[in-house]
Amino acid sequence: MRQSELYTKTSKNIPSDEVSLNATLLIRGGFIHKEMAGVYAYLPLGLRVIEKIKSIIQEEMNAIGGQEILLASLQGPDLWQKNDRWDDKKISIWFKDKEGKLGFAWSHEEPMIEMASHHVGSYKDLPVFVYQFQNKFRNEPRVKSGLLRTREFLMKDLYSFTATQEDLDTFYEKCAKAYEKIFKRTGIGNKTYRTFASGGVFTKYSHEFQSVSEAGEDTIYLDPKKKIAINKEVYSLEVAKSLGLNQKDLLETKSIEVGNIFKFGTVYSEKLGLKYKDRGGVEKPVFLGSYGIGVGRLMATVVELLCDKSGMVWPESIAPFKVHLIELGRNKGKQVYAHLIKAGIEVLYDDRDASAGEKFKDADLLGIPWRMVVSDKTKERVEIKRRNANKVELLSINEAIRKLI
Amino acid sequence: MRQSELYTKTSKNIPSDEVSLNATLLIRGGFIHKEMAGVYAYLPLGLRVIEKIKSIIQEEMNAIGGQEILLASLQGPDLWQKNDRWDDKKISIWFKDKEGKLGFAWSHEEPMIEMASHHVGSYKDLPVFVYQFQNKFRNEPRVKSGLLRTREFLMKDLYSFTATQEDLDTFYEKCAKAYEKIFKRTGIGNKTYRTFASGGVFTKYSHEFQSVSEAGEDTIYLDPKKKIAINKEVYSLEVAKSLGLNQKDLLETKSIEVGNIFKFGTVYSEKLGLKYKDRGGVEKPVFLGSYGIGVGRLMATVVELLCDKSGMVWPESIAPFKVHLIELGRNKGKQVYAHLIKAGIEVLYDDRDASAGEKFKDADLLGIPWRMVVSDKTKERVEIKRRNANKVELLSINEAIRKLI
Repeated sequence: MRQSELYTKTSKNIPSDEVSLNATLLIRGGFIHKEMAGVYAYLPLGLRVIEKIKSIIQEEMNAIGGQEILLASLQGPDLWQKNDRWDDKKISIWFKDKEGKLGFAWSHEEPMIEMASHHVGSYKDLPVFVYQFQNKFRNEPRVKSGLLRTREFLMKDLYSFTATQEDLDTFYEKCAKAYEKIFKRTGIGNKTYRTFASGGVFTKYSHEFQSVSEAGEDTIYLDPKKKIAINKEVYSLEVAKSLGLNQKDLLETKSIEVGNIFKFGTVYSEKLGLKYKDRGGVEKPVFLGSYGIGVGRLMATVVELLCDKSGMVWPESIAPFKVHLIELGRNKGKQVYAHLIKAGIEVLYDDRDASAGEKFKDADLLGIPWRMVVSDKTKERVEIKRRNANKVELLSINEAIRKLI
Repeated sequence: MRQSELYTKTSKNIPSDEVSLNATLLIRGGFIHKEMAGVYAYLPLGLRVIEKIKSIIQEEMNAIGGQEILLASLQGPDLWQKNDRWDDKKISIWFKDKEGKLGFAWSHEEPMIEMASHHVGSYKDLPVFVYQFQNKFRNEPRVKSGLLRTREFLMKDLYSFTATQEDLDTFYEKCAKAYEKIFKRTGIGNKTYRTFASGGVFTKYSHEFQSVSEAGEDTIYLDPKKKIAINKEVYSLEVAKSLGLNQKDLLETKSIEVGNIFKFGTVYSEKLGLKYKDRGGVEKPVFLGSYGIGVGRLMATVVELLCDKSGMVWPESIAPFKVHLIELGRNKGKQVYAHLIKAGIEVLYDDRDASAGEKFKDADLLGIPWRMVVSDKTKERVEIKRRNANKVELLSINEAIRKLI
């Protein structure tokens, strides 16, 4: 796409009410727009990143048997009352309409379970795994970390329905592996750790995926060699010991929760009446697990973990474009742009009337993985450079394209 | 996908509280699930249709220069008060939180205009066209037509920002042509007509795209030869005459509004302060147009217009799968399934333990464009038949695949 036609502009100004690094960079780069405290819109560059993250998640969820669906945001009291989660005194983050008769889903377990009761009746219907990308609305009192904690956010939530605890355990481990792949593919794998966390009333532990970052709200105790961590919430010497971890190997660090996986067992199914008939015709409650990833939060975490002092640094897998083609003066930019498009390379072409300094600054801010420069100086060649490296190569267009595909 | 693994089941029962044909068929086929009155979830088959419709709309919007973004649902009072659309007495369909300090967007003009003021400042930034797929929440008193009128629905809304009335008029016509392509590609082109409708306080007329159907809530006067219609709201002999239509050629019919396009001119920009500097440095208000398509409503309209007494009939462009492979008894279904997958054909493979009668009934209900049968009777061959035709052909697998791709 031609940058002169791009809807957004970069900005030098740091928004005065924004203290987080992720939102500051994303707003300055024109990836997102702040509508209110804790409420952000996605602009063309940001939405491209979101869509790429979604595709990676979809691929990994489909690979373990997930089927995509989409529930509504509007919720009625009946279901939630059955599970004792409608009362504002119990769940303070509900957004409800004026009369308190409708709510906007802050979670989707209850409607997921109700819906499953229409399609799951027999052991033959199990296991089944369904997921969605759907907004959650949460009346959060603290919204201070940019996209890390917002009042409206897109979440991938998957639900596993299985006949037995064993099938639940098996899928749970499969999903944990899929999550590891997702975080690796989005560029934060080496800083993200499976973390023991509270299992609530349901199970001894749940697991979170925590990315080490000073921007995080969580604190974890991390064994970097064993690649395992314990959330401070549940940490004790005893817990560490029981998990085979040695206190002296553990590092206390701040971290961002980028995903979580949770076993509900049969508690919710029993309350909401989700049963199946086993081979003998006996009715039994279905085992439930839930598995979440905040899509916007993941994008913000990538910004926090990979950026440098000049701007964002996107991994190729989720970058809005692969190449940032920068034309200095008027020369053969158009031609090179056409070549790249023809080769199927996603390219943002900076064809604006702007100084070299301005263009390079913007390229660093936007963080597209490859910078390609054409100018009078490069003659028939192009200069290419990775965003996060200093080495510059002068190549023919064909050589450059071969390098990029 | 194997039907035995599909999350949903078909149902013979017509939901007792559902009077509309579209919702009855979509629920019976397992495409959607009713969560409450006017609130539906999309199940795997339904979501596949929605995603295909979205892709078609995206292609056509991108082709006329649209850039995709995504605004939030949560809205604050400030912006809307400026435009005098916050007060419940003026806009009765607002969903607001208990304290009345936050609303859930029933429309997005105000935030779109506010956002544009951050990126549009000069004539050089115009024209620009941005669109999104985003939910609208509307506290509708009448919700009776299945997916045709709901309280939460996915809409594609595009906004044009132009420097002049002339540029607005040009884009408006371009978008109208893009809409015609979209309705043609989704299978309802020959029953959908550009219709003169009320322009409110902004302009003499707006345009709707109305699909002829008894299920519709609108009434139009249609000239089938000239392929043009007038909404009853604005109809009069004079209006007909002024548009070059003759009363005696006009047919009164019910119809479904599947899209609308609207010129706001500068009214909203002036109220909300969206200005640009022209070549001479003079500040002028930006011209605004808005262009909507309800994605779920479009899906429901396709069901209403193309179904028959046995079930849905999907056009290939938006069908959940292209082929419904039906295996009778246990024979070479698996093999044929593998062949089809390898050929890149989207196929739902009915590998369930069920009678031929049951499988054929379900195939008719689901409405996948091609039915392919393998049985002991077909031996090395397969039987193929279009959903909406009676002719059955007995072909080799390779012949069948050649016919399908």
